[in-house]
Amino acid sequence: MIGKSTTKLINSLALKKYRTKENCFLIEGDKMVKEALDSDLRIKLLIVTDQFTSRFSISQTDAERIIETDAKELKKVSLLQHPQNSLAICEIPEKADFPKSLPEGLSIYLDGVQDPGNMGTIVRICDWYGIQHVFCSPDSVDLYNPKVIQASMGSFSRIKLHECDFEELSVLAKNAEAPVFGAFMNGDNIYQQQLPKQAVLVMGNEGNGIRPAVEKRITNKLSIPNFSENEIKAESLNVSVATAILCSEFKRAYSK
Amino acid sequence: MIGKSTTKLINSLALKKYRTKENCFLIEGDKMVKEALDSDLRIKLLIVTDQFTSRFSISQTDAERIIETDAKELKKVSLLQHPQNSLAICEIPEKADFPKSLPEGLSIYLDGVQDPGNMGTIVRICDWYGIQHVFCSPDSVDLYNPKVIQASMGSFSRIKLHECDFEELSVLAKNAEAPVFGAFMNGDNIYQQQLPKQAVLVMGNEGNGIRPAVEKRITNKLSIPNFSENEIKAESLNVSVATAILCSEFKRAYSK
Repeated sequence: MIGKSTTKLINSLALKKYRTKENCFLIEGDKMVKEALDSDLRIKLLIVTDQFTSRFSISQTDAERIIETDAKELKKVSLLQHPQNSLAICEIPEKADFPKSLPEGLSIYLDGVQDPGNMGTIVRICDWYGIQHVFCSPDSVDLYNPKVIQASMGSFSRIKLHECDFEELSVLAKNAEAPVFGAFMNGDNIYQQQLPKQAVLVMGNEGNGIRPAVEKRITNKLSIPNFSENEIKAESLNVSVATAILCSEFKRAYSK
Repeated sequence: MIGKSTTKLINSLALKKYRTKENCFLIEGDKMVKEALDSDLRIKLLIVTDQFTSRFSISQTDAERIIETDAKELKKVSLLQHPQNSLAICEIPEKADFPKSLPEGLSIYLDGVQDPGNMGTIVRICDWYGIQHVFCSPDSVDLYNPKVIQASMGSFSRIKLHECDFEELSVLAKNAEAPVFGAFMNGDNIYQQQLPKQAVLVMGNEGNGIRPAVEKRITNKLSIPNFSENEIKAESLNVSVATAILCSEFKRAYSK
């Protein structure tokens, strides 16, 4: 039985205000809850149906509190349209230390990415391409937003995310003498560049792109060329799709 | 004033059954409605607020019926969480003729892609990369699903989408002596391939990948290598992200 206060808590975690207050966030989806169980995350509450426990064994020490319930009850508290068989409330881990020098390889800076689906997808892309540090502006969507967690498919726990003004990352890039790339509509053709191993790549907000104050510090503007031969062309690519294509270009030379 | 029957019609268009019955589909979002106005699409009903008409001029011949309303009324009938200032009901255009021979360049086949966001994003990617023909299995999500239309950002009107069994496309590939590539977890490293200009690329369902009957006809299996050095790695990339990276690889050699 899931009590009223638990239901209220789960619902409140959709909002950053309450995530901060409770220092907790929500994970849904069986694969992701299973990953959380296998990770270092501290699980405050685990809600599972027998569909979950018949697939994955859980012990009492896996979470501070475990509630076994049925699909109907779970659906009532889930934030998903189509909930699976489990839900976990986890403690927000301590923030990763801000690096003292620019990380090896590629670092990503997200300048005001707002859509949680895009943020989660970008985190998943970075995890795939071995990009360990993702930096984002303070006005970007919160990593612990349930929709970000959902879209990241577990990758959120493997990426070090730093919230910072661009200035702070810019100093690290300068000290490392590394170029700062940015995605623009009118930049140089990405396919014709010699791309360095160590660099910063800035991706902008969905509607407005990279803000002028950040643009000033960008040393190399990049574009993904539009191949359409239609009279009316697509205006842009989705920011997570563009991030994937640019990361692929930065990394392809180093694939084993 | 938006009447009850109009409200009911709009809501019904979330379901394929009613889209087929009415031969209509829904477009929301000002940019996309504007694109619809500029296109050959036949608009049965246009609902706009003065926020829309102050930005874009519309004439009585733009739609069979035009309703001017306010934000509050529009929100009541919109399927979006955050509606903008317009909504259009358009006639579903006639199906594109199935090509008699394999199209030049790259053709995409979607084998059971289910998520409307993925489908719309893939259509947008294809539009960007100049891929004119997208083929999909009969069990793929419907192109005229409102969420597909939304995610495609107008690209749906520039792409020729064909619903067909893979067999039909496979015959075209055979006649053209073109290879059939497919995205798999254990295929050859995409970054180490010589990719031909004319080919078919198959992308599979979100959870199950490419089905065995289609796999049999694939001549070249491809993978995007995982660059992560973590002990636990991301299992996969989202299918629309993978499509973007693969299209980028097929097209990069031909960028001007």
